[in-house]
Formats: sequence, C-alpha cells, structure tokens
Amino acid sequence: MEKTEVAIVGLGTVGSGVARLLLDHGDRTARHAGRTLWLSHVVVRDLSRERDAQLPDGLLTDDLQRVIADPNVKVVAQLIGGIEPARSIMLQLLAGGKDIVTANKALLAEHGPELFDRARQLGRSIAFEASVAGGIPIITNISQCLSANQVTSLRGILNGTSNFVVTRMQQNNQPYEKSLHRAQQLGFAEADPTQDVDGSDSAQKLAILAHLGFGARVRWNEIPRRGIDTLDKTDMNYAGQLGYRIKLIAFALNTDQGLQLTVTPMLVEVGKPLAEVRENFNAISVVGDAVGPVFFHGQGAGRMPTASAVVADMIDTAVGRTALTFKTLELWSEGVPRVEMADPGDLRGQFYLRFNVRDEPGVLGQLAGLLGDEEISIASVFQHTADNEDDGVVPVVIMTRASLERNVNKAVAEIEKLSCVFAGTERLRILD
Amino acid sequence: MEKTEVAIVGLGTVGSGVARLLLDHGDRTARHAGRTLWLSHVVVRDLSRERDAQLPDGLLTDDLQRVIADPNVKVVAQLIGGIEPARSIMLQLLAGGKDIVTANKALLAEHGPELFDRARQLGRSIAFEASVAGGIPIITNISQCLSANQVTSLRGILNGTSNFVVTRMQQNNQPYEKSLHRAQQLGFAEADPTQDVDGSDSAQKLAILAHLGFGARVRWNEIPRRGIDTLDKTDMNYAGQLGYRIKLIAFALNTDQGLQLTVTPMLVEVGKPLAEVRENFNAISVVGDAVGPVFFHGQGAGRMPTASAVVADMIDTAVGRTALTFKTLELWSEGVPRVEMADPGDLRGQFYLRFNVRDEPGVLGQLAGLLGDEEISIASVFQHTADNEDDGVVPVVIMTRASLERNVNKAVAEIEKLSCVFAGTERLRILD
Repeated sequence: MEKTEVAIVGLGTVGSGVARLLLDHGDRTARHAGRTLWLSHVVVRDLSRERDAQLPDGLLTDDLQRVIADPNVKVVAQLIGGIEPARSIMLQLLAGGKDIVTANKALLAEHGPELFDRARQLGRSIAFEASVAGGIPIITNISQCLSANQVTSLRGILNGTSNFVVTRMQQNNQPYEKSLHRAQQLGFAEADPTQDVDGSDSAQKLAILAHLGFGARVRWNEIPRRGIDTLDKTDMNYAGQLGYRIKLIAFALNTDQGLQLTVTPMLVEVGKPLAEVRENFNAISVVGDAVGPVFFHGQGAGRMPTASAVVADMIDTAVGRTALTFKTLELWSEGVPRVEMADPGDLRGQFYLRFNVRDEPGVLGQLAGLLGDEEISIASVFQHTADNEDDGVVPVVIMTRASLERNVNKAVAEIEKLSCVFAGTERLRILD
Repeated sequence: MEKTEVAIVGLGTVGSGVARLLLDHGDRTARHAGRTLWLSHVVVRDLSRERDAQLPDGLLTDDLQRVIADPNVKVVAQLIGGIEPARSIMLQLLAGGKDIVTANKALLAEHGPELFDRARQLGRSIAFEASVAGGIPIITNISQCLSANQVTSLRGILNGTSNFVVTRMQQNNQPYEKSLHRAQQLGFAEADPTQDVDGSDSAQKLAILAHLGFGARVRWNEIPRRGIDTLDKTDMNYAGQLGYRIKLIAFALNTDQGLQLTVTPMLVEVGKPLAEVRENFNAISVVGDAVGPVFFHGQGAGRMPTASAVVADMIDTAVGRTALTFKTLELWSEGVPRVEMADPGDLRGQFYLRFNVRDEPGVLGQLAGLLGDEEISIASVFQHTADNEDDGVVPVVIMTRASLERNVNKAVAEIEKLSCVFAGTERLRILD
C-alpha cells in the first residue's frame, strides 16, 4: 500500500490526540485514505517534559529542521497555538514544501491573508477544519457540501467555554464568576479565559466562516462583539420566565444593505435548536438559498473531537482533495470583496430591554413614550419586584417588536437620561 | 475560465431544480468549482409535456444517445427514479465515459454492487449525496469529514413522509389515514406512499449509510423493518403523557455481537434532538469514537434541497474530488465484509409495551410474572381507562428497563396466550 509520511508540530492536547489516532488506528486511516499515513516526526519545544502520549522511539524531536529537511514528509499538522512562533513555523513549513493542517484559528484570523497567499504562491495548501467548532465539520460543509448555495444566514454557538458558563448561570442560578470557576475546574475554561468569554474567540471563528460562506473580507476585530463576561444572572432568570435562554451567538445575515456580522449574547426561544445546546457543545445553523436551514451540533473542543477534524484534514490532504478545494476557496485572497459590511444600526430585530427604575407612578409612561418616539413598538412589559426593597429600585423588562437597532440605541440613550432611571440598563437582541 | 460540460437525465422535481441552479446561478457554481458547469443537454422521455422549467432552446432532447455520443459531456446527473430504465441508462452512461451523479437510492440499494463495480472497472465515479437525507450532506460527512473515526452508532429520521405523518398524529391527535391524507394534500407524500410508510425507503437509505459508516455489506431488504402504517394514535397519546414522541428511526449500532440494524418506530424522549424533528424534516445523529456525537438536521426532500446536494456532487465531480473519494470508498465492493450482522434478539434496550386486558383483578400480576420469568424488569406501569367502557377492555402500558429483545418477544408471546389478554398488543423500542 502507498504511504504518505506526515509529521506533527506541537504535542499538546490536540497533538497527542492526533498522534493517538495515527499510531493506534493506522488501519482505519489507511482504509479511508487508500494509503498509510505514516507518522515520521513529532516536534516539541521541550524534550524533557513528561507526556501522556506513548510514542515509538526516535519520533520525538525538538528540531523543526528535521521535518523541513525530510523530503518524504508531505503533510504537517501544525498544532502550536497563539501567533508566534506558530506563524514563523507555518511559513518555514510552506517554504519547505509541506502541506499544512492546522487548528489555530487565532493565527488564521490574524494572519490568514499572508499565510494563504504564501501557500498559493508555493503551490501548497492549508487545511483548517479544526479551527472552527472542533469536531463539527463546518468548514467542509460550507465550502464543499453547500457549494450550490448562496449562504443567506449563519447563527452559531462557537465557544464551548461561554456556552458552559451561560448554561450553568441559567440552570443553576449561579453568578458569572462562580460558573466560570466551575468551568475552569472541569477543564472547560482555561486559566486565562479572556478571549473565550469576551467574544474574541467567537469573532475569530465567525470571521473565518464569513470569508467562506459570504465571501466577506472582514478582519475579526472589525466585527462588533460583546462577550458573556458582563451578563447578570438576573437577566437569565427574567429571560427564562419569558421562555428564552441567553446564548452567546455568532451571527451573520446577508441583507440588502450588506452583510451583518456580530457576536453578542442573545435571547433564544426555548425549543429552538440553538436554545437546546448545553454545556460545552457547539452548534451552527446555516441557511442556504437552495437547501434551506441545515443545523449541525457536536463537540466544539477537546482532544479527540478536535483530533478527529485534524486527521480528516490530513487524509484529505494526503489523498489530494484539499489541493483541489484550496484552489477554489478564494479564502483571504486579495480580490475585490464580494460583499460589503452593513451598518449594525440597520439591523432589524426584537430586543429585550431591562431598565432599573425608581418605583413610582408614571415611569412606565415615560419609557413607553421615548420608545414610541423612535418607532419602537412594545410587545410586552414586566415590572419585577425589587431585589432590595429598601433602595426603591425595580427592574422593568420590555420586550420590543422588530425594530431598527439604531432606533433602540437612541431610545435607550434618551431613557437613561431620565431622573427616574438608574444605571445598569441591559439590552439584548432576541434571535429570530 | 475552464468549462466542464454537464447533462441532466430526467426533468422531474429534482431535475428542474438542478437545471435552475445551473442556469440561473452559473456564477456561483463557477466560483465554487473554479470552472463553469455548462449545461449542454437535458434528456426527457416526452418532449411534448408541459414543464415549469424554462430552458434555453436546443437543450431539451428525448434522445439519450445525444448525451452518450457527446465527448464534451463529462458529468451527468441521472435523475430518473425507480429501477428500470434508470439502471440501464446508468450502465450506458458509464460505458460512454460519463461520471454520474444520482439521487436514486432505490437503484443504489438494489443494484449498487453491479453499478459500482462497473464504474470502478471503467475508471468512472458515481456520486450519490442526494440519495440519503436530501439536503443534509450526510454522505460526505460520513465518508470524508468523519474519516478519522470508527462510527459506533447512527440514529436517523430519514423519511420525511413518515415524519410528517407521525408529527401530525401526535400533535393534532389525528389517526394515521387522516394524517397521511393531509401529507398527500401538502405534497409531502406521494399518491402511492407504500415504500415511505412501510419503512422500505428508510431501510434503503440505512443500507447505504451502513455500507459507508460500518463497512457492512447488507442488502436493504435484509434489514428488519417496520413502518408507521401500523401505528395507533392511542400509543402516540400514551407515549406523549410519559414524555416521549414516536418517530420512525433508522438505527445502527456496532456491538460485540456484530452490527445491529433496524428500521422501526421508537419512543424518543422529548428534549432529545431526534424527538424535536418536526414535519417533513430529516435528522441524523452519528457517534464516532473520536468525535463523539454529531447531529445533523435539515430538509430531507423537496426540489431545491435535493438539487443543492446534486449540484454539490456535480461540482465535486467536475473538480476531481469525487474521483479521489470514490477510489477509497470500498462501497459495495466484493471484498470481505468488515462487520457481521448481529442477531436482532441480542439487542438490549427499554421497551414500551401496551396490552389490551380484561378489566379484572389479578391481571397485572400475571403480566408481571411472565415478564419476570424472562428477566425483564418493569420501570413503570400505567393502567389506562377503557376507550369503550362497555367492552371491559383496558389498555395497560408497561415501560421496561433495559432487556434483551429476544426475551421481550418471548414474554409477549406468553402473555398473549393468557385468556385475560386480547389482541392488539403494541411493542415499541425506546431510543436510548
């Protein structure tokens, strides 16, 4: 049987999972690839570190040049996180004639154009299924399986840490900090979870999907984003009473005014598939103009789910499919953008608004009046009892009908100027 | 830009959708394929028939030889249903050097080995994404995206007609015939829906997925199957009261005793993704040993969802991906089977049993005794009120704990011999 030699750079969580699939299940990859994927080198920074992965003798090295100089190695899984030295290593590997498989979405989101242009110049390929949604094969599904469609919208839960935390906050009625701490204890959140909980990680993934699905040329940090780190469990409760769950949603919608992109916590109606995504799972709902809605659900992170995506990419690359797909991807190419970004203010939708108001007559009339001035219709109003009866502050929750985000922002700014309204207004979109 | 000439054989519902995508959205397919997919011929049986599809002059023909004799045509979407003349046409097209795309699962399930062997001999390919679950790209996901996994189980709702009917029966409390009639009015069931409602269609699709996911070499009509055509809405109600919905499930599970395959209505707990699949939608839950559970949901039939899958296959074939995948598929090859079929009696699971018994003391004790003799533990018992108080017949619903199917069958046979038990026992598996 034909043999393709491969290498792994980085033997962390994902790297050791990839090594396990290649070493322990070689028969399986051979069957699906029609050839043996032969692991020739595993590059690590520190040879002396203890590892759980059992590797055959002679495989482990701390010398990247051994991989680059080995002409038999065709495919390299580059599994080092962060920007540097990951970027330099990828450029060296490409220059050395290797096809790359990676899970590093931060690097792609930050340096995609440079890396992809370089790969194209050199006639090489970069596969990156594992960079978005871990085990859910959303990259192949959008770029290959749904290629007869214009994608019209995309709604995803792309960050397992955030979803674990909001699931805990809502189910167990626990505050943000405590839920995050629990996620860290269970290994669903890193020691420094900033990029996960502030929406950056989701925005990086959404940028990749927006390039693929809509031909957008947006940089991840241009996407308006808000994370879950500012959510109050009070709003989880109020939303729950109204039949909604709050989820961190990566949102893309093709409109006449351009492409709307945002990452933000939204209210999702119970019973809708995205509302039922629990704990650390990920999910994506894609609408194509031919296929209609297609929904994907699975594990968005973790050793073996991510390794599953990496090894599938290695097989695709060894077989030759990736080269064919990469040629037509147009990803991060310098061509003219196919879609313009829309002004976020133009987005229409329903909103959940919570104002902290003084418990006195006439307040609701003032709120309703200012909303009406901006053509915002009210679907329902709930005046809750005060958390603390002494301070005379009561939360008022208003669910609006479909309104322009710009108008909602204006109305909220006016309402916050009222002397009967205290600080701490919450404003969340409702997913339609 | 490079050009690949393609043809369509059969201009029914799916064929006209495919023509629309190719003719109206040529820019899109060109972008995703890196080449123009140029529609050169559309073959129909009867040129005089009225059609909704507007085709450019000169495209339509009733002469298949025009396609076969045209050396420029590389890819043919063969969209005629049924066995003959579809089979002969496919063999002629393959002999004429064409790569084939098809949605005809009945033909593949019946004559897959012959057609695939012929394609392999001739160095051609057959793509068949549209043959299972319509717009859900389950074929590519199992054969390519999850190729690093051993699939361990698969649970699918693969027949939109059946799912529409059971959704109606349960939601609207309507009997089978009325629900089926409504499905026919709305275009979700054909005039002769036999193959859909008796489980044959689901078994044909399951056979294809079992070949792909497990390396099974089973024929579709060897799969134990029961359809929805014998379901009573009474059981829908009782199941609903217990927190379950009844769904037609195509089920595959890899066990130590071999591969369990079955198509049968099962109770699915409300809240589980498969329980929430409504109307004519399809869904599949696949578990891989690396990726864990992955869930797919979308439209399993209809003009544009199916056309979406066909055109994606046409792009894959034109680009060259299909040829690479087809080589390693092992599908319907004459090799040694990788998995043995298990004895259905060896399957362990919980059961819903409904007995019609005489309303008299001591009956429950006899039922419980006979179940106990076969080592079947009872999880709960519900004695319902009689539908008709005069005849003295009351339904007793028993939910068992996990038991061997063989034992359940034996116990039910013994119970049905009791003089206090009337005809019409129902026995349904509970999906775990």
